[in-house]
Amino acid sequence: MHRHDEMLIPDITRRNAKLFPRKEGFVCGENRLSFAEFQERTNRLANGLMRAGVRKGDRVGALLNNGREYAEMYFAVPKCGGIIVPLNYRLSPRELCWIVNHAEVKVLVVDEGYLGLLRPVRAELTSVQQVITVGGQASQTTDYEEVIASSSPEEPEIDAHEDEVVGIFYTSGTTGVPKGAMLTHRNLMSTCQAICIETKIGPSDKFLIVSPMYHTVTPSFMFAHMYRSSTVVAIDHFDPDLLLSTIQNEHITHVFLVPSMIIFAMEHPNFKDYDLSSLRLVWYGGSPMAGEKVAQAMDLFKCDFGQGFGMTEIGPCFVSVLSPEEHRELLRKGDYGRLSSAGRNYSNAEVRIVDEEDRELPIGMVGEICVRGPHVMKGYWKMPEETEEALRGGWFHTGDVGRIDDQGYLFVVDRKKDMIISGGENIYSAEVENVISSHPAVREVAVIGVPDPQWGEAVKAIVALKPGMTATEDEIIEHCKKNLASYKKPKSVEFVDALPRNVMGKVLKKELREKYWKGYDRRVH
Amino acid sequence: MHRHDEMLIPDITRRNAKLFPRKEGFVCGENRLSFAEFQERTNRLANGLMRAGVRKGDRVGALLNNGREYAEMYFAVPKCGGIIVPLNYRLSPRELCWIVNHAEVKVLVVDEGYLGLLRPVRAELTSVQQVITVGGQASQTTDYEEVIASSSPEEPEIDAHEDEVVGIFYTSGTTGVPKGAMLTHRNLMSTCQAICIETKIGPSDKFLIVSPMYHTVTPSFMFAHMYRSSTVVAIDHFDPDLLLSTIQNEHITHVFLVPSMIIFAMEHPNFKDYDLSSLRLVWYGGSPMAGEKVAQAMDLFKCDFGQGFGMTEIGPCFVSVLSPEEHRELLRKGDYGRLSSAGRNYSNAEVRIVDEEDRELPIGMVGEICVRGPHVMKGYWKMPEETEEALRGGWFHTGDVGRIDDQGYLFVVDRKKDMIISGGENIYSAEVENVISSHPAVREVAVIGVPDPQWGEAVKAIVALKPGMTATEDEIIEHCKKNLASYKKPKSVEFVDALPRNVMGKVLKKELREKYWKGYDRRVH
Repeated sequence: MHRHDEMLIPDITRRNAKLFPRKEGFVCGENRLSFAEFQERTNRLANGLMRAGVRKGDRVGALLNNGREYAEMYFAVPKCGGIIVPLNYRLSPRELCWIVNHAEVKVLVVDEGYLGLLRPVRAELTSVQQVITVGGQASQTTDYEEVIASSSPEEPEIDAHEDEVVGIFYTSGTTGVPKGAMLTHRNLMSTCQAICIETKIGPSDKFLIVSPMYHTVTPSFMFAHMYRSSTVVAIDHFDPDLLLSTIQNEHITHVFLVPSMIIFAMEHPNFKDYDLSSLRLVWYGGSPMAGEKVAQAMDLFKCDFGQGFGMTEIGPCFVSVLSPEEHRELLRKGDYGRLSSAGRNYSNAEVRIVDEEDRELPIGMVGEICVRGPHVMKGYWKMPEETEEALRGGWFHTGDVGRIDDQGYLFVVDRKKDMIISGGENIYSAEVENVISSHPAVREVAVIGVPDPQWGEAVKAIVALKPGMTATEDEIIEHCKKNLASYKKPKSVEFVDALPRNVMGKVLKKELREKYWKGYDRRVH
Repeated sequence: MHRHDEMLIPDITRRNAKLFPRKEGFVCGENRLSFAEFQERTNRLANGLMRAGVRKGDRVGALLNNGREYAEMYFAVPKCGGIIVPLNYRLSPRELCWIVNHAEVKVLVVDEGYLGLLRPVRAELTSVQQVITVGGQASQTTDYEEVIASSSPEEPEIDAHEDEVVGIFYTSGTTGVPKGAMLTHRNLMSTCQAICIETKIGPSDKFLIVSPMYHTVTPSFMFAHMYRSSTVVAIDHFDPDLLLSTIQNEHITHVFLVPSMIIFAMEHPNFKDYDLSSLRLVWYGGSPMAGEKVAQAMDLFKCDFGQGFGMTEIGPCFVSVLSPEEHRELLRKGDYGRLSSAGRNYSNAEVRIVDEEDRELPIGMVGEICVRGPHVMKGYWKMPEETEEALRGGWFHTGDVGRIDDQGYLFVVDRKKDMIISGGENIYSAEVENVISSHPAVREVAVIGVPDPQWGEAVKAIVALKPGMTATEDEIIEHCKKNLASYKKPKSVEFVDALPRNVMGKVLKKELREKYWKGYDRRVH
């Protein structure tokens, strides 16, 4: 039974099939599905999953590349009352095994190319009753297209409610044990509406998926564009040429990119050869981008830019928003500081900064960023204590440290766990990183705390230099002394070829810290 | 306690006061309030209402003209946990008395000019403990500005939940006994988001309130624009000169009008003298408008037009939507038929047509329009049976008869209760009205059923002619015979100077029917 006052994720595809049956709904490579075909295939898949034993609330894992099947899974799993568990194909077999077992996944849908990732741990995946394979025909697995072909095209009638979970999105694991953020119909529809309101999309727009579809940001944009009956196009991996040629050939109007993708595209030698005139808006997020870089990108792409702050637990990029209008205005004013901020509190969320005792801090003070609003997750899967801790007092505690200025702009200063405490002083790694980044020879830098017998922690910089450039440890430290309070300067500098990053472009500080903290109790995250 | 995953109506003003304290928030006549002032005054009013005895769930009536106080009431009442009951000042003292008693209003906020409306029934309003008067100082009442001045500016901390009722909106009463539609935070926030998505508004826009603020459409637009931190301007009555000069002088970008207001403005002799270049979008609804008139208006106003279908119980104008893009496209194609339709199912609602047994009808078939989605009311206040009947099977039954064409456009054919059953045939009054309207001498027409001993009901047309034009009963009937199946033509025609209409421009057919049905059991509505 569907309540009279709710709209659920599967309602999106039914509406599109009714209003725009012949319009292109989802495109990836050779696959071009109309909204009617998309509706039929997702219905078939939903029925197929039910036949495979998926019942209300059962978890269905997805270990897939970007593509038609991933888009279908995001609608078919809620259509049969299941819960999707998107899996990151960059994880090791051991990590995947942990997540699949923790989520107690019943049916796994896997790209043939990733079967090898599961092989070493297959025997341990005791909850998995069936593996459905996309592409090729592996023995002991079921073929995805066979499931589609042999199932009914009618939409299943199921009991569903907006506060029920659509997906469990495991956090990327830059710190600690992965936690599964449970996002409900209501959470996802709310993010959907935020995207529609902020990006002003309509049925004549065309969105390009570039980021991996297992990350919450990607289905969020997909849901939003399908909600507005826009066409969604996907590419199955990031490559500057593929990105630029797809924008050109498919007449893409909207795209979401992480800053590193924007920079790769800008630095592409043939950038100017592509006709990007269809592009109306580039939305970016996931990691910070310097104001000067943003200005340069706006100049080069010749379209609007928008950006926002979010995370898996609270919805991506639309909790705090730097709107296209603000981008233009700040650029006109030359206010590069605010252009690199995370923007202002979006209409349907509330953001505040609190101290260690959860008291709201006045304007300008640095503390933990807390958020509430309908995007905020229901909780962590099977972790009631972590849920209660994260949501204490009716606010989600982001674990990010930041401040809000007198015009309401949010500045994310650091991850709380990346903050260094040295001699009783709080040192924000991001602040030190910004200074070191401004050194002409530095390509990228991460600043971490390492054990120090005298100060508790000492500041250490891990630096990758630009090709052909040189700089010494002393020069870097000297540069910091000139631009920072002395206690914030690194005590040591290590040079590396490149920093370890996750797929969203975030530096894996845990990995950097690990070797220094071996044998210590603290800093296990 | 405010839940971590909800946003409530009062959150709108708090956010604006934080982000845009000095920006103009609400303007009416001489009163120009910044968002900070608006937040402070609504906090004070909320505290004042609490001091007057308003507790969680208590009803607060508003009998007010458009203006600052009405805007403040819509935020202050939910801020103190109360429920606002907007009252139509066009009602008779007897009708007002019925509603105030039915809603058990505890505190009444009244414009001094309307105290006379209450005087004859004051002794019967036993639930009313306090009357607060706006303007002037009536004895035995409290002054609104005194309440504001003597109360704390801090926002009250109250328990609130999105499924709680913000307002009870009594239906305008064109049929039967008034019913109080209960709209929750969630209903209103959802309509808010629909307006934002469809009208693409942002903080740099400026909305003009023209329609009466007791009608649900007006606070809905006000909430939406405040939600996006736009400035809201109000005029206290409709007058073409005041409308056009306010658009010009306040640089209005968005306005909601009912068709009759648009036509009045278009026909104003000095229309061309006003500079309306700031206007980006006119949204209209409430009653149908012929495609040709829409085309003429778009040409004259030189801005986008949008329109939609809705009603008090399901939210106004954004359940089915004819978007600005569709207006342009249909105009380009000369598709005046669809230009006068109610548009297509909005993204966050579902519309379907059912037969008498609530079975969904195929494309093109005429039946009752049913709706579901988060805008749909919680129910009718103190009318559990009517609520259950209206919401049976998880759908709100609108009582409107319509069809959806093969491209998804909704055509509202008639009110179910205005449908005439003659000799077993269904005759839609609106269809006959459209034909009679096309007669060159006819200014306006209403078609009703009157008792007929042979056929049960007979078709009767009530016609007002254009000034200086003439037409006879036979000519009108002859005109219908040429353009309609013979059984649909009126058996009689009555000529009047003008049709009775309610303030939203809807013809009051109940009033027209009354004299013919006196002494009959049927058609009491």
